[in-house]
Amino acid sequence: MPEKARSLAEISWDAFQSLPLADKARLYSRDQRLFHVIVAQQFDRPILEELGAVATRIRRIAKLKAGMDFLRTQLPHKSAMLYFSQPSTRTFLSFHSACQILGMRTVEVRDTSTSSERKGETQEDSVRTFSSFSDVIIMRHSKGGLAEKMAWTLSNTERPVPIVNAGSGKDQHPTQALLDIYTLQRSFEKRGGIDGKKIVFVGDLARGRTVRSLAQLLTCYRGVEQVFIAPPQLQITDDILGLLRASNTRFEVGDDLDKILPEADAVYMTRVQDEWDEKAGESGRIDTSRFCIGADQLAKLKQNAVILHPLPRRGEISVEVDRDPRAVYWRQVRNGMWIRVALLAHIFDVTGNIRDFSG
Amino acid sequence: MPEKARSLAEISWDAFQSLPLADKARLYSRDQRLFHVIVAQQFDRPILEELGAVATRIRRIAKLKAGMDFLRTQLPHKSAMLYFSQPSTRTFLSFHSACQILGMRTVEVRDTSTSSERKGETQEDSVRTFSSFSDVIIMRHSKGGLAEKMAWTLSNTERPVPIVNAGSGKDQHPTQALLDIYTLQRSFEKRGGIDGKKIVFVGDLARGRTVRSLAQLLTCYRGVEQVFIAPPQLQITDDILGLLRASNTRFEVGDDLDKILPEADAVYMTRVQDEWDEKAGESGRIDTSRFCIGADQLAKLKQNAVILHPLPRRGEISVEVDRDPRAVYWRQVRNGMWIRVALLAHIFDVTGNIRDFSG
Amino acid sequence: MPEKARSLAEISWDAFQSLPLADKARLYSRDQRLFHVIVAQQFDRPILEELGAVATRIRRIAKLKAGMDFLRTQLPHKSAMLYFSQPSTRTFLSFHSACQILGMRTVEVRDTSTSSERKGETQEDSVRTFSSFSDVIIMRHSKGGLAEKMAWTLSNTERPVPIVNAGSGKDQHPTQALLDIYTLQRSFEKRGGIDGKKIVFVGDLARGRTVRSLAQLLTCYRGVEQVFIAPPQLQITDDILGLLRASNTRFEVGDDLDKILPEADAVYMTRVQDEWDEKAGESGRIDTSRFCIGADQLAKLKQNAVILHPLPRRGEISVEVDRDPRAVYWRQVRNGMWIRVALLAHIFDVTGNIRDFSG
Repeated sequence: MPEKARSLAEISWDAFQSLPLADKARLYSRDQRLFHVIVAQQFDRPILEELGAVATRIRRIAKLKAGMDFLRTQLPHKSAMLYFSQPSTRTFLSFHSACQILGMRTVEVRDTSTSSERKGETQEDSVRTFSSFSDVIIMRHSKGGLAEKMAWTLSNTERPVPIVNAGSGKDQHPTQALLDIYTLQRSFEKRGGIDGKKIVFVGDLARGRTVRSLAQLLTCYRGVEQVFIAPPQLQITDDILGLLRASNTRFEVGDDLDKILPEADAVYMTRVQDEWDEKAGESGRIDTSRFCIGADQLAKLKQNAVILHPLPRRGEISVEVDRDPRAVYWRQVRNGMWIRVALLAHIFDVTGNIRDFSG
Repeated sequence: MPEKARSLAEISWDAFQSLPLADKARLYSRDQRLFHVIVAQQFDRPILEELGAVATRIRRIAKLKAGMDFLRTQLPHKSAMLYFSQPSTRTFLSFHSACQILGMRTVEVRDTSTSSERKGETQEDSVRTFSSFSDVIIMRHSKGGLAEKMAWTLSNTERPVPIVNAGSGKDQHPTQALLDIYTLQRSFEKRGGIDGKKIVFVGDLARGRTVRSLAQLLTCYRGVEQVFIAPPQLQITDDILGLLRASNTRFEVGDDLDKILPEADAVYMTRVQDEWDEKAGESGRIDTSRFCIGADQLAKLKQNAVILHPLPRRGEISVEVDRDPRAVYWRQVRNGMWIRVALLAHIFDVTGNIRDFSG
Repeated sequence: MPEKARSLAEISWDAFQSLPLADKARLYSRDQRLFHVIVAQQFDRPILEELGAVATRIRRIAKLKAGMDFLRTQLPHKSAMLYFSQPSTRTFLSFHSACQILGMRTVEVRDTSTSSERKGETQEDSVRTFSSFSDVIIMRHSKGGLAEKMAWTLSNTERPVPIVNAGSGKDQHPTQALLDIYTLQRSFEKRGGIDGKKIVFVGDLARGRTVRSLAQLLTCYRGVEQVFIAPPQLQITDDILGLLRASNTRFEVGDDLDKILPEADAVYMTRVQDEWDEKAGESGRIDTSRFCIGADQLAKLKQNAVILHPLPRRGEISVEVDRDPRAVYWRQVRNGMWIRVALLAHIFDVTGNIRDFSG
């Protein structure tokens, strides 16, 4: 075993890949701060709480024009590349707004067909080119692991700019996990926080990367109970349950939503992710009618419970639910923007300025 | 009949749809100002004159760097979403520039294939998502009535941001009507304004939404005479003529351009809109050679008359006409930008600042 | 022969086209400064040295936030249209960043299918529309000569904004030539500059427009020797050799890279441009294995020599070369951004401000 590398520039790609996740996470950080943001497992409870506090501070500052004016002076000397080769309006808009709020310049590469890849350039060279014109690369790609590879690649160049993973492949979407945690933090602000709450996940738990990441992050909190309600074919997978067992998390697996609703503090709804179907129409044959929320389900829910959804939704939450104060999924969208502002402020080390602002 | 709703949030979609246009228009406004901008019929003479005056003020302020610097401080805390699912370079660029002149942050969604619609999201949810990241949605869509639907939908959410219709379906393109009126205001500035002028519309009057809107708006002025010159198949439709009769507007319908030219104060040229052909090639069989302007027609035109065109043009105005001082269609393009700056300044209530500026 | 025109507005298109290049170049300038930037032959030694000096000044100012803040105040009242109908991520990002660094507003038209061309608008009208909303048009197009045509067209309108050619057709890409010269200036800064150096061009010299432009521009310098190393089918063409002869430039044509390497001060590598193949697969049949740089070639190269490449690369430079200090092609990418900032600052006459800045 080689001695511990202190940075991504001191380790070969092969050696890096074979590291356990915790060691990788350490190498994504610099000077005690997040630098590359690649996997949800990088976040521990202190960083989740710090980012949440910064996001809330920013949200309040932003209420006044003077506050927005102040925020915009934080990073106007920095430029963000939004490299989205996989469609995602919501995540794109959220990051774009976050950059603009801090005054960052932005540039987009949405469609790789307009790029040098046509001319035979490698992906490494393309991303290295992007890094020539930007101070952070926010990337979304259908290829799992690409963000990790790029973080390592750039760390070995003259311009090692940070990579922020905005969704890669089936597995990782760390800022979605951040916004989910932030939404729970806000929802339970006056109820002692996330500790000790019962969180119910509903829908396509097998293929939803947001569920997988959130379930893991919730193990940072004390006494959280997790319940997984899904049709058998879409139920949470054993690797996640293994992680929960390893961290002594209480959990339950079932398929009776109505029964669990009265006990839930938060219900995390998801849509069927049929874009990952292996056979066409596969998901269509699953009966998901019992994994939906409408007026009947609202009636069973506690008055101070909340309903989340990473969106987009289909029929799993009726439109009539939107007006119920317990439906926080639209607020969750805004939370996603604020927590991303906080994340960028953290990466570029201006959270101190923001804490000190008195507008 | 229900009691009169005071806002879009107090009326059901079905009830709203059945309202007469004047009542709808009232609900698009807030605090005596335009809020949603959906149809040309929302504009009355006072608002047309106010917006024109603001546009002219802005145009003058913008001549100096100090003025541009001032304008940019007006709305840097506001963000505009440009949602253009139908191609339109000119209108897009015009709104984009208008936003930038006021310092607004902008973000574009041009192609819906990059959006969540693929994942089964409803259009209502998509637009609601957009509203999460912006303070105004400027939208262009091939579906008639969509802007109206979205205005109502958003008015019933926690973030009821204004919708500005940048063209929807065959019928409505209210800011085009605004810029046409503003161009006429400027053209007749030293000749007593629009009142009493003879306006000649030429070309495809059946399908040009700009003609339809402008013809209606001109009824806000006193003693305007309207002349419609077109081949029979493309002549103005009876619904518009009915509106003109109802407002006691003098009008004339014919097909002899050369004869009417010497009397015209303004000639509003249009191209054949064959993208709306019901049968392929239909428009191609219509003889439009007598509905064009070249050197011969210029010779017949009064010295102080003006030629407008919403652009793009094909052959209906020869390129040689461009250098004639009466050809104002290129200036019309710039007017479109200035009137949109004025409109945004009005919606966000900063026209007072602009009036008070002494640069 | 007509008397000499003093501006593009005083000469017909036909007369302009028949002018020798030097006369054209004169008409692209205004008030002793570059205005339209269309061909590399417009640059003479004084302008190359001025732009290089400004670029270096800007690069240093930009190292501090206060410097970036200052630069951003230079052109916030100006708007740039990036009209890229041909894909080019690198050039696009470079110009985009350059504009943003000076605070310019930017707007992009990347895909002409979203434009009025569908509705039958001429290219002249489209570009004239663009000029209505911008203060400079930076354009890239597959059609050779289009930038020149547009420069002439706009010069004959009420808004004669400058055109900057960001690559048109096979032939011209003047800002690439600028950045290549700037990279050589920087590389030889402490070795007496470009004068007297031996520059070796390698690869596809027949079709690489960057090689053709650079070879010509190097004739502005004293005692430069040029060597062209390529397989016979891709060798430099006679028109360029004719120009070199006419300017008494020493040159050599050959195919033995290893032999020439020990004498080279700079090696300018290029990829095979098979997108210009006349028959499919044509280039694939050429043996290019002897026109590559790897560890063996590095060993033969002088310690103070430099390796350039316009990128994107394929296999002609091994990735292992990247870490060698003589490999300057990634720095060349950044140089491209800085020299474009300098060019825009020059066109809009703010280089004086920049020289005077004491941050």
